Amino acid sequence: MREDNKYVIIMAGGIGSRFWPVSRQNMPKQFIDILGTGKSLIRQTFERFAKIVPQQNIFVVTNQDYVGLVREHIPQITADQILAEPMARNTAPCMALASYKIQSKCNDAVCIVAPSDHLILHEEEFKTQVIIAFEIAETSNKLITFGIEPSRPDTGYGYIQKGIKDSNSSLYSVKTFTEKPTEEIAKSFLETGEFLWNAGIFCWSVNAILARMDEHLPEMNDSFSKIDFNANNAQEKIRDTYDTCQSISLDYGILEKDKDVWVLPSDFGWSDLGTWKSVWDTLPKENGNAIIAPKKQISESKNNLLFTDKDRLIVLHGVENLAIVECDDVLLIMDKNREQELRKVLQIVKKEFPGQYD
Amino acid sequence: MREDNKYVIIMAGGIGSRFWPVSRQNMPKQFIDILGTGKSLIRQTFERFAKIVPQQNIFVVTNQDYVGLVREHIPQITADQILAEPMARNTAPCMALASYKIQSKCNDAVCIVAPSDHLILHEEEFKTQVIIAFEIAETSNKLITFGIEPSRPDTGYGYIQKGIKDSNSSLYSVKTFTEKPTEEIAKSFLETGEFLWNAGIFCWSVNAILARMDEHLPEMNDSFSKIDFNANNAQEKIRDTYDTCQSISLDYGILEKDKDVWVLPSDFGWSDLGTWKSVWDTLPKENGNAIIAPKKQISESKNNLLFTDKDRLIVLHGVENLAIVECDDVLLIMDKNREQELRKVLQIVKKEFPGQYD
Repeated sequence: MREDNKYVIIMAGGIGSRFWPVSRQNMPKQFIDILGTGKSLIRQTFERFAKIVPQQNIFVVTNQDYVGLVREHIPQITADQILAEPMARNTAPCMALASYKIQSKCNDAVCIVAPSDHLILHEEEFKTQVIIAFEIAETSNKLITFGIEPSRPDTGYGYIQKGIKDSNSSLYSVKTFTEKPTEEIAKSFLETGEFLWNAGIFCWSVNAILARMDEHLPEMNDSFSKIDFNANNAQEKIRDTYDTCQSISLDYGILEKDKDVWVLPSDFGWSDLGTWKSVWDTLPKENGNAIIAPKKQISESKNNLLFTDKDRLIVLHGVENLAIVECDDVLLIMDKNREQELRKVLQIVKKEFPGQYD
Repeated sequence: MREDNKYVIIMAGGIGSRFWPVSRQNMPKQFIDILGTGKSLIRQTFERFAKIVPQQNIFVVTNQDYVGLVREHIPQITADQILAEPMARNTAPCMALASYKIQSKCNDAVCIVAPSDHLILHEEEFKTQVIIAFEIAETSNKLITFGIEPSRPDTGYGYIQKGIKDSNSSLYSVKTFTEKPTEEIAKSFLETGEFLWNAGIFCWSVNAILARMDEHLPEMNDSFSKIDFNANNAQEKIRDTYDTCQSISLDYGILEKDKDVWVLPSDFGWSDLGTWKSVWDTLPKENGNAIIAPKKQISESKNNLLFTDKDRLIVLHGVENLAIVECDDVLLIMDKNREQELRKVLQIVKKEFPGQYD
């Protein structure tokens, strides 16, 4: 594989309240070592890609408030590799900004666009799939999504329905995209065998995606195409562009409208780690207890999730199905099976203690 | 009431692991503000009696390791009022030590013997009962116990069965003592209407109790009677006495054997606060949640006990019947209805982390 034109865009703008109280506005999920591995999710993401493309070809797009955190977690990358968004505008502008930046460096670049805060367990399998996608993207105008074989009717994920198999590759055409189906629908999806989880990881040539942007989001494309990354006032220009641009996702703004979108069925141990429950799903368990805690004593308890980085002893006895999460200033204990209510809980806390625990 | 011959013996030797992790070997229950009132239990006990007898007539018997804590919690009392036990020998030696000390000061003393770590909600009613008991003890050789009208078939308490009513007072003769009955038996006790909880609070003249000690525990009485509290080597002599004396409770060693024991039915909002569950029973509750925590946010949760003195936010959502107790180095979360298993839990912790959390 030719390496110099292979690029990665890591999207790291998420503000993430879903891992509250550990994740905060000033400490989003991607900067947290949510699985207790010793490395934050963004650090893991960077290291994963640094084994596939040259380190200097990895770009991180993040909110301007998190630039310092990105540099702290990935000291290897230069300031030039960090693209600071002045405000959150969803993934289409994020991709546009990074794509024009990369195009300004390499006119025949192909790139992976990936979230900074997902889990990928099987790195070798992931690398293999990325290389397959790079090779197709390099020689075609296809927009490629990575689809994960679903293991359960998860209602929190997006689904991609496979269409016809490509005769020259392992790609399938994309028939439909469905965001967060009901449980009933998710179950029927699994039964057909046609549906994959949308991992939110994409591969294409930069020229291909920018041409599609021109087709489907022409105003947005027009304004981002005018940014001169070498100009002194580049950041000012970026601000103006974000100020006026639409907030829209890549999926909704481009992929769902396009005819030449393909899915690469994959199985590399992916999870979007979207909730505490998904962390519990992912972690190894003893008696159903998934524990990230330096000192613990668990007896006659099952199916609990415990997350703490505090050095004190946590003792559980005779408890079940709890999500217990502690950080310096908050201890959260909730029914693990009601984790979808965390947002509601956080709203109450925000109302009761404004500005203190956001 | 003549005041100068009225004395109080506060028994404060308990090492109390029942409120672990808040109570520790070096911080027993009596020194803890277990109800979040702003005052430790021993401090509350002292203040309660200081409204009834002269402050200088209140003696505290404690383990020598806790003398510093006693002085810290009750700075008003002198070193002479603190009797240091060299080792734990249950309540009979404790009472003997304090009784001979008091007898050396006042030959016609009458005294209350009371634990340092119980709850009494209705102080006026308590004072009234104490004065009634003092008056009877002053003019008779009766040994008086305080009996509490039971409100539930508690299996953790001792029970006193009333016999015949005294014609001159509100006392009843004591028919039987029963320690910690089974639930079935406790229920039958309540049905008869004859049984009271043994509050572990006693009243008698010092001469009366020491005469009974001579009768029922002659060896113990003999050795304690020889202590000269004014001698330079008094503490050494106390150590020798404790070294060889029997470890036995007042109830078992004297009261259960004696014929002239009476019970004063009382209702002053008493609890021995023996377990976290009893703290929950005692505290005011909202949706069944008893909460001692500076900052909390409770939603869709019920019947929990939360105890913390930490200044951080505790958030509960969708949880029930938990006992949640935190201190600097331990967070305990257990099924509140299995609180009798706390001892077992503590044994496991002691084994896993020897000497660290005792």
